[in-house]
Amino acid sequence: MKNRTEQVMQAIRRRIDGGAVAPGEKLPSIRGFAAAMGVSPSTVVEAYDRLAAEGVIFARRRSGFFAAHRNRPVALSELGPRLEREIDPLWVSRQSLDAGEDAPKPGCGWLPADWMPVDSLRRAIRAAGRADDGLLAYYGGTRSEVKLRRLLSRQLADQGIEAGPDRILLTASGSNAIDLVCRLLLSPGDKVLVDDPCYFNFQALFRAHRVEIIGVPYTPQGPDMEHFEAALARHKPRLYITNSALHNPTGATISAQVAHRLLTLAAAHDLIVIEDDIFAEFEPDPSPRLAAMDGLDRVIRIGSFSKTLSASVRCGYVAARPDWIEALIDLQVATNFGGPSPLAAEILHHALSDGGYRKHMEALRARLARLRRLTGARLSGMGIIPWLMPRGGFYLWCALPEGTDGAAMARAALSENVVLAPGNVFSPSQAMTSYMRFNVGQMGDPGIYDILDRAMRAAA
Amino acid sequence: MKNRTEQVMQAIRRRIDGGAVAPGEKLPSIRGFAAAMGVSPSTVVEAYDRLAAEGVIFARRRSGFFAAHRNRPVALSELGPRLEREIDPLWVSRQSLDAGEDAPKPGCGWLPADWMPVDSLRRAIRAAGRADDGLLAYYGGTRSEVKLRRLLSRQLADQGIEAGPDRILLTASGSNAIDLVCRLLLSPGDKVLVDDPCYFNFQALFRAHRVEIIGVPYTPQGPDMEHFEAALARHKPRLYITNSALHNPTGATISAQVAHRLLTLAAAHDLIVIEDDIFAEFEPDPSPRLAAMDGLDRVIRIGSFSKTLSASVRCGYVAARPDWIEALIDLQVATNFGGPSPLAAEILHHALSDGGYRKHMEALRARLARLRRLTGARLSGMGIIPWLMPRGGFYLWCALPEGTDGAAMARAALSENVVLAPGNVFSPSQAMTSYMRFNVGQMGDPGIYDILDRAMRAAA
Repeated sequence: MKNRTEQVMQAIRRRIDGGAVAPGEKLPSIRGFAAAMGVSPSTVVEAYDRLAAEGVIFARRRSGFFAAHRNRPVALSELGPRLEREIDPLWVSRQSLDAGEDAPKPGCGWLPADWMPVDSLRRAIRAAGRADDGLLAYYGGTRSEVKLRRLLSRQLADQGIEAGPDRILLTASGSNAIDLVCRLLLSPGDKVLVDDPCYFNFQALFRAHRVEIIGVPYTPQGPDMEHFEAALARHKPRLYITNSALHNPTGATISAQVAHRLLTLAAAHDLIVIEDDIFAEFEPDPSPRLAAMDGLDRVIRIGSFSKTLSASVRCGYVAARPDWIEALIDLQVATNFGGPSPLAAEILHHALSDGGYRKHMEALRARLARLRRLTGARLSGMGIIPWLMPRGGFYLWCALPEGTDGAAMARAALSENVVLAPGNVFSPSQAMTSYMRFNVGQMGDPGIYDILDRAMRAAA
Repeated sequence: MKNRTEQVMQAIRRRIDGGAVAPGEKLPSIRGFAAAMGVSPSTVVEAYDRLAAEGVIFARRRSGFFAAHRNRPVALSELGPRLEREIDPLWVSRQSLDAGEDAPKPGCGWLPADWMPVDSLRRAIRAAGRADDGLLAYYGGTRSEVKLRRLLSRQLADQGIEAGPDRILLTASGSNAIDLVCRLLLSPGDKVLVDDPCYFNFQALFRAHRVEIIGVPYTPQGPDMEHFEAALARHKPRLYITNSALHNPTGATISAQVAHRLLTLAAAHDLIVIEDDIFAEFEPDPSPRLAAMDGLDRVIRIGSFSKTLSASVRCGYVAARPDWIEALIDLQVATNFGGPSPLAAEILHHALSDGGYRKHMEALRARLARLRRLTGARLSGMGIIPWLMPRGGFYLWCALPEGTDGAAMARAALSENVVLAPGNVFSPSQAMTSYMRFNVGQMGDPGIYDILDRAMRAAA
């Protein structure tokens, strides 16, 4: 039995399939269609947004919605709701990636290059230059790079996760790991749960998979379990994705109670859980891990070394049930003829096995702890208040002064070439207008607080 | 107006959607269903195969077809027709990738590692170890790696293709380049044209995209234009993919006349063409290029350096219309948070700019020309006759003695740990039973011809 939104969606599909609205032709206005169907405009908005997510229609900024041309490549930017670019996940990602190395980037999601263990990397690269011809020139096997996989196996065992070689797959990156899992598990039109707020590139990724995103409000102990349970019952999502260790953007850590309840509900509703562990090494001590509690049954663990070692020498991993790993290998072969660069895996293994890596992370954690305190104090003095003080990592998720629009503040900062991350880029429900995520490792520029102040005033 | 196959497909879809066949339940036998619907069994076979390609049903070897579980990950190996593993694209790829470096692999698609310019690679890696911190540790920008893109721009210009920086995208690999283009252009249920025979991983890739593959017979001058035109009219495919320069597996080169006719038909039928140029540098002199004739309007050019430089330092590229490049960047950011490893791009650029690369390719072309002649003669002496003698490259596409089943020969060779590439793994229509592709660079093992002889007898 379809609800009203689904009835509206079906009516639109019929119009398009039947030819009443030709490809490229504008759809009725939201008000007009709502009146015609006897439903509220918000119902039509929801229907249009969901059809846009599936690629049946597309949105053109400030013009409305149009029937998709069957033979037209559907660009990602046309799928999903129309958003101001400052809160559009794809636009914000690209701004951060394309900003010069010297441009101040309090909104970006990584640390400065010279904070990475570059000496270890250089040693590792030199060593790789002396490797066998095969390592330099050959494709990797589907289950090779044994040394790195053993290292990951040990790391997982330290977290209480038993994952032998048949449960670990190396990938081109952490994002690629999640993408492969989505290709295996999702079909267009499926529903997925995310935290609200969540890492904004998850939203761009799910847009690429043409699935509907449902956000669950996030608390300082993890996702709100009442809302989570209600969302499972109402939407029957296929999967849920979250960070363990330190949540992006809030920096919160899931509590044992929430983790246990979450997994119980997941089992009851046949929900698959993706646990993205990319910030694991920034924790001062281990926190509850979904994959450890679940034993890699319905939880899929993802990780990479982009945040702690190198985002240039790219490699990620998946830990999961052996039959899913087997299916992911087939997908990898079909779509990339293999996994990560064998040379990259060798370089990473060398750098991770270097005595210096552990010391590097200890120093980094200490440095970030100090910076979180100092930055938090400085921002608080300006009326920008951290929602909580994280146990680790480089994010501070802050409430802006009452009534400040984070997107407007980001727009103003951009005119001074500074990239910020306004709250609503993280929020599928757009409920984070007056929040902003700050990267304490990218606030070192002496003039940055003046720029923030000017941007804040411009946005008021 | 639906043809019979589509009527059968619709009937099955209704049964599954309506619950008459539950997820995981076996579908009626082919004969039984054919009788019930008053159609020929081959119509039901085609319907089942097409539904399997879309993931609506799945095949279990030697058991039949089953309704797909909505909540079940659909493994790639279950999509598409049931094939003996020796002619299953995914299985053959994995065998080749996982065979040890020393195992004889006349069936694999690359040259031995020590044939690659490993000295250049080592120098390039050492130089990369002295690069800026940023290159070692930072994400790449969405349009960075300028030096490599300029090099590609010049190479394309040499082929008569004008492609400035806004028309070139770097990717994680050549396969990844094709996969990204497919993600932009294809939806499940679409149809695509391929050569018959064609590179078998194209088939695995299209299976991953849940599209229907239609083969066009290949002649020594390129695809058969009568069949090509008929296929366009009948199936209205979205795109066509082929190799320029040297066709995989036949080694043929498209003629100017066929290229021109192909593009004329493509324009008339709004067909997009993907030209995979991965064997370009093995040509002795340039042959007609679809992208050059077309001016990168409806032709998308793909390439990589995996066959001539390194399959470990992975990087591919797409050259296409600027609006498609823009859309592909969004997809790259969403699914991989970027393109190739910046370090890999730097290493490749260094090695390609090394004075030694050109000499390496000259020597390689000469060596392969000699080996094609010698290997062709030796195989002919055994009754294995090359279909044509290619102008370049390392493949010989050969007719086996009358009545020899290539798959059976491959199976026999595998018992001696030798990986062969039987004709039908390349043929969507399974019309190449008595053909086989040989890699002349992987036939150096002294005992290889004896092994082939034994395998041939076992298969007779």
